[in-house]
Amino acid sequence: MDAGDMSTGDGRKVWIFPDGDLPPAGDPGLPLEGHESLIVLNTGDEDAQIEIDVYFSDREPEAGLKMSVAPRRVQCFRLDKPLGDRQFRIPFGQYALRLRSTAPVVVQVGRADVRQPNLAYYTTMGYASD
Amino acid sequence: MDAGDMSTGDGRKVWIFPDGDLPPAGDPGLPLEGHESLIVLNTGDEDAQIEIDVYFSDREPEAGLKMSVAPRRVQCFRLDKPLGDRQFRIPFGQYALRLRSTAPVVVQVGRADVRQPNLAYYTTMGYASD
Amino acid sequence: MDAGDMSTGDGRKVWIFPDGDLPPAGDPGLPLEGHESLIVLNTGDEDAQIEIDVYFSDREPEAGLKMSVAPRRVQCFRLDKPLGDRQFRIPFGQYALRLRSTAPVVVQVGRADVRQPNLAYYTTMGYASD
Amino acid sequence: MDAGDMSTGDGRKVWIFPDGDLPPAGDPGLPLEGHESLIVLNTGDEDAQIEIDVYFSDREPEAGLKMSVAPRRVQCFRLDKPLGDRQFRIPFGQYALRLRSTAPVVVQVGRADVRQPNLAYYTTMGYASD
Repeated sequence: MDAGDMSTGDGRKVWIFPDGDLPPAGDPGLPLEGHESLIVLNTGDEDAQIEIDVYFSDREPEAGLKMSVAPRRVQCFRLDKPLGDRQFRIPFGQYALRLRSTAPVVVQVGRADVRQPNLAYYTTMGYASD
Repeated sequence: MDAGDMSTGDGRKVWIFPDGDLPPAGDPGLPLEGHESLIVLNTGDEDAQIEIDVYFSDREPEAGLKMSVAPRRVQCFRLDKPLGDRQFRIPFGQYALRLRSTAPVVVQVGRADVRQPNLAYYTTMGYASD
Repeated sequence: MDAGDMSTGDGRKVWIFPDGDLPPAGDPGLPLEGHESLIVLNTGDEDAQIEIDVYFSDREPEAGLKMSVAPRRVQCFRLDKPLGDRQFRIPFGQYALRLRSTAPVVVQVGRADVRQPNLAYYTTMGYASD
Repeated sequence: MDAGDMSTGDGRKVWIFPDGDLPPAGDPGLPLEGHESLIVLNTGDEDAQIEIDVYFSDREPEAGLKMSVAPRRVQCFRLDKPLGDRQFRIPFGQYALRLRSTAPVVVQVGRADVRQPNLAYYTTMGYASD
């Protein structure tokens, strides 16, 4: 296959999510664990090399957490688990995310909250910044 | 009626939804069954011929599921039911959607989740890519 | 005050909402009645003269329901109540909305669903089409 | 550090949110208090000087509430608490927000509603108007 067969994917290269706030995991045995996720779709024919910057209210950002999404794949990154090449753990409390990708992608964030313990959802498509 | 009377509809021709994840149907007898839906509005005066590509985390996409939306109509496609001309069944787990249409449309996705068994909603307008 | 003092408001003149589906009102005595609303903000200094077109899956649209939003005001229109100058009642089942305004506005739709009977919310900013 | 080292942040300078409606705080002892929040991310290297205009259905807007967000920080402003330099209290009932910033920012609004008393979430990214 030569380069002419490669298709550029849909979307944008910079995505912003202002409102992150990890919920507690909730009681054991619930059908869904409380968590937040970042979902990245790469419809193109090249790897998307991604860097995540995590912003806080009271300290400098944690910048450049590296990960990747394979061509023609969607990948769900759990935000309550160690994240990226440095396995950074996002602490509880307000945070925000900026994602930068080498290839166009489309990105959404979701929260599942079971602390009451009923399920409540929270989601938004990111703001594409580039 | 000649072509001059035909109105082009509102919207765009490519729509992207990164976060699909079919919920369980839930207990029988609940007022709403757990499901996801793709809702397509065609405000124009021509049929919208649609192709859906379904993306996964661990396999190549299921591409080109065909369906259509009549002029001046909104259509709700259940994502937990056989989909399109090939009657493809989306499996449980992470998936994403790309919709391509011959005519401009506006597209939203919704999830109704009753696994707890209280109802939780999850929705976003798609990212328009063309 | 001459025309030079009038400020054009923020937003756009055409807004689209694909997924409308009125929930039942729910049991009497619940803190919030099940309903959908269309919320229109007019930040400008002129009246926004609005026309709503309601789309369905199986019939022609109900077009040109007229209403207005005063300058520098936000107005919430209940979608489960008689709507516009013709006091049209949207039936249960899938519908979609197109709003056209003489002045720029910003428009959001929300659903409060209490049929389970816990509260579930569903909202999206509209797709601006002009 | 000279001006050449300063980076302009991501986003836009005007953001609009049509649907604000403060929920009751809910019963004492619930894991989350009912409230609305405005979440502002400033990824740039300068302070974002912000003015909020609050719109209502039946009176003139409360304009120009001042606040700021430091460089490379995300800030969550509670909308059910005294807001800005004038410590304005938003009353119960329909309201809308316009945010104007001296520097590009990305802004999201969220509601946590516990009146039933289960938790229900409501969120949207703002409409960027400039």
